[in-house]
Amino acid sequence: MQPTETSATQLRSTQPSPRAKGVVRVGIVGYGTVGRATAEILASHAEEIRQRTGGVSVVVSRIARKSPRASETGSNGVPVTADWHEVVSAADVDIVVEAMGGTGTAHDVVRAALENGKAVVTANKALLAQAGDELFALAREKNLPLGIEASVAGGVPVIRAISEALAADRIKAVYGIVNGTCNYILTQMEQRGMDFAAALEQAQAAGYAEAEASLDIDGWDARDKIAILARIAFGLSINAADIPVTGIRHITSTDLHYAHRLKSTIRLVASAERTNDGIHIAVEPWLEPIDSMLAKVDGANNAIFIAGEKVGTQMLYGRGAGGDATGTAVLSDVLEIARQIARGHTASSTLAGFVSGEAVRPSMRTQPMSWFLRLAVNDRPGILARTAEVIAHEGINIDSVIQEPHMPKNRLSFVITLEPTPEATVRRAVAVIDKSEFMRSPVLLLPMISSVEEHV
Amino acid sequence: MQPTETSATQLRSTQPSPRAKGVVRVGIVGYGTVGRATAEILASHAEEIRQRTGGVSVVVSRIARKSPRASETGSNGVPVTADWHEVVSAADVDIVVEAMGGTGTAHDVVRAALENGKAVVTANKALLAQAGDELFALAREKNLPLGIEASVAGGVPVIRAISEALAADRIKAVYGIVNGTCNYILTQMEQRGMDFAAALEQAQAAGYAEAEASLDIDGWDARDKIAILARIAFGLSINAADIPVTGIRHITSTDLHYAHRLKSTIRLVASAERTNDGIHIAVEPWLEPIDSMLAKVDGANNAIFIAGEKVGTQMLYGRGAGGDATGTAVLSDVLEIARQIARGHTASSTLAGFVSGEAVRPSMRTQPMSWFLRLAVNDRPGILARTAEVIAHEGINIDSVIQEPHMPKNRLSFVITLEPTPEATVRRAVAVIDKSEFMRSPVLLLPMISSVEEHV
Repeated sequence: MQPTETSATQLRSTQPSPRAKGVVRVGIVGYGTVGRATAEILASHAEEIRQRTGGVSVVVSRIARKSPRASETGSNGVPVTADWHEVVSAADVDIVVEAMGGTGTAHDVVRAALENGKAVVTANKALLAQAGDELFALAREKNLPLGIEASVAGGVPVIRAISEALAADRIKAVYGIVNGTCNYILTQMEQRGMDFAAALEQAQAAGYAEAEASLDIDGWDARDKIAILARIAFGLSINAADIPVTGIRHITSTDLHYAHRLKSTIRLVASAERTNDGIHIAVEPWLEPIDSMLAKVDGANNAIFIAGEKVGTQMLYGRGAGGDATGTAVLSDVLEIARQIARGHTASSTLAGFVSGEAVRPSMRTQPMSWFLRLAVNDRPGILARTAEVIAHEGINIDSVIQEPHMPKNRLSFVITLEPTPEATVRRAVAVIDKSEFMRSPVLLLPMISSVEEHV
Repeated sequence: MQPTETSATQLRSTQPSPRAKGVVRVGIVGYGTVGRATAEILASHAEEIRQRTGGVSVVVSRIARKSPRASETGSNGVPVTADWHEVVSAADVDIVVEAMGGTGTAHDVVRAALENGKAVVTANKALLAQAGDELFALAREKNLPLGIEASVAGGVPVIRAISEALAADRIKAVYGIVNGTCNYILTQMEQRGMDFAAALEQAQAAGYAEAEASLDIDGWDARDKIAILARIAFGLSINAADIPVTGIRHITSTDLHYAHRLKSTIRLVASAERTNDGIHIAVEPWLEPIDSMLAKVDGANNAIFIAGEKVGTQMLYGRGAGGDATGTAVLSDVLEIARQIARGHTASSTLAGFVSGEAVRPSMRTQPMSWFLRLAVNDRPGILARTAEVIAHEGINIDSVIQEPHMPKNRLSFVITLEPTPEATVRRAVAVIDKSEFMRSPVLLLPMISSVEEHV
């Protein structure tokens, strides 16, 4: 990519200089936690970066944010403007980092930057889940890189793992913990016996959850992330809105207690797998053996498993959020692109080849799995008999029934685990149980991970 | 890189064709497990590869092995030659895959390929540990890529994680399980109470260990791998021969038993960390809490932790060996380079910037750590008193003493754990204890990982 000093996009208000040899210039749009961390790491680690890029200096030349303070400057003294158009059109910007989030203006920013011939790096999973096909098509048309490593699992390099490390393999499944907030809440409930509301409050106090927590706890954030991973892993176009999502709002401390009785715990898992009947994708809580690797993932960490036909099952683990981790991921893409620019050529993203596939709708799992059902009921005689009858009617075998003694009659919870059964069958039984007048709330239905892992 | 149809290296015996647009040609030297898997995956996954490289076809055009059978051909019908010179000089080879291993001929192959203007991909950790500086300097001089992802941890993309994903971060430590054979042996000893000899025999029967097992069990393979990782992580030149190495040959089933008493297990860990006193690098067995992630790594798997200043601690886990996993890693580099070639330009490896640093000698750990000492003695009165006296003389506090009852007098083992103590101090005490006439074999001294992890 050549600097476009004479282009119509040049701004009168500034004095863009031609790109000095060995210098690559970054414009940051959105100067919150991630944008600021990106600028600060570039400044504090300039020496390492120069060494690792083979002598390229990467500098922040422009910054825009929605409402800058008067005379606000970025970490290296660059003035902060309120007008993102200045950044995406400036002649002295080679790479635009979109760090504002959301799917409105951010969409315009990424499009405009690519239209203006700028490479783009973004951490915006919602935007990519919604408009990834369109943006990758544009990047491809313009022969420009579009870096998205930071969009999933913060600093954990899962996009690179799938798109580069496993480029020669056929991926069977990608699954794991991709939302640190939910994982923090579930580990608090597990380790301290807290109920959901208290654990959520603590996550908010600790800065892990926003005041409006629905994006995390109802699974929407995880849905956007697995949509991106599935698209890259399988080369298919997937509409995030088609993915079935169950959050963690209805999980109680009693559920964690029963999980513990089964030598297990509960984690919110986003999963995508090739099956004989298509691509299964879901976000849902899983019951996992307490000694499994996934159960070891505590606090706000992320862990993603990738199962390849040739490479076997890999796991990548680390901090999934936070300015520094996400900023490092943003910079991993920035530096890769900067090396290309310094050598005088950029190219369409490696990822372009991964996202050109046909559109598919996720399908339900068909292979039989074990299931955990928790029923919260108003106690009266005959509930277990009635429930067992419904389950038997579908031809499902019960593996175990657990009911703690001395529970209050009006808030009784008990658990039934089922031998391997197809999802559609168990959901039919659950639909019938849910209609019973003794049910206080719908059945909590969790797949049991040990049976899932057998399949990947 | 342009094909050199008219160069002096052209072979009379063949009819090299100019590179067709969108076709990149691979020459494989060494056609054992890894070389063969590489060729087979290229053939079986050709469609995926074309999609993921944006339309590039990657084909095997030449194969050499030491002693080909008469009329032997590779998986796509390419004749197998005995003369590697043909492969590295052929005009119809763009990328040379060195898959023969060893540090003799392999060294000549990689040098000659680079001299002839070929990109090179190698899985050869011994060669890289010994001659990495020289080979990267040559690659840089020739402006050619040198791919080494497969040299450490098989299919687990640890080289990419350090050199690309964390390119903007300052790495504090890299440590983990990088030898699957040792891990398989230790997990057999742990889970089945086997002694070392029986577990080694089983590893050999299962194909995880060579008949000549020293390379694995004495830690030499792990040493070469950590030398490569440390070099990339810290940008320093490290002589593998300077790294202190302790293997697993002297670990007994009794040690695993005592580890279990301490709610721990034993794993062979290769580690490199920045300390206030320099770079500490070692290969040695560690005592780890049984509920730690590292202790969960069983069988022939690998797991590498990378601690970055900004990104926090990450872990990458997966199959560390085997033809398919290693072949996938070889191909991750091949495909990245193939995309460059198809676009008409190659460039010196990203890694070149990581390996230009000054030469350093690894230093001993100076921060205090907890230690596990196992003594195997000929029992007589006063042994514990004498041992405790030596330890007290160095000013070290004992944390616990464990001795199982009813052990044979002539094969008595007991364990002492120490409160945090600098390594030099504990080694002085151990040197004195080792001279006592009651010792049947030298003290087995293991750092306790929980105290190490506090530092990273």
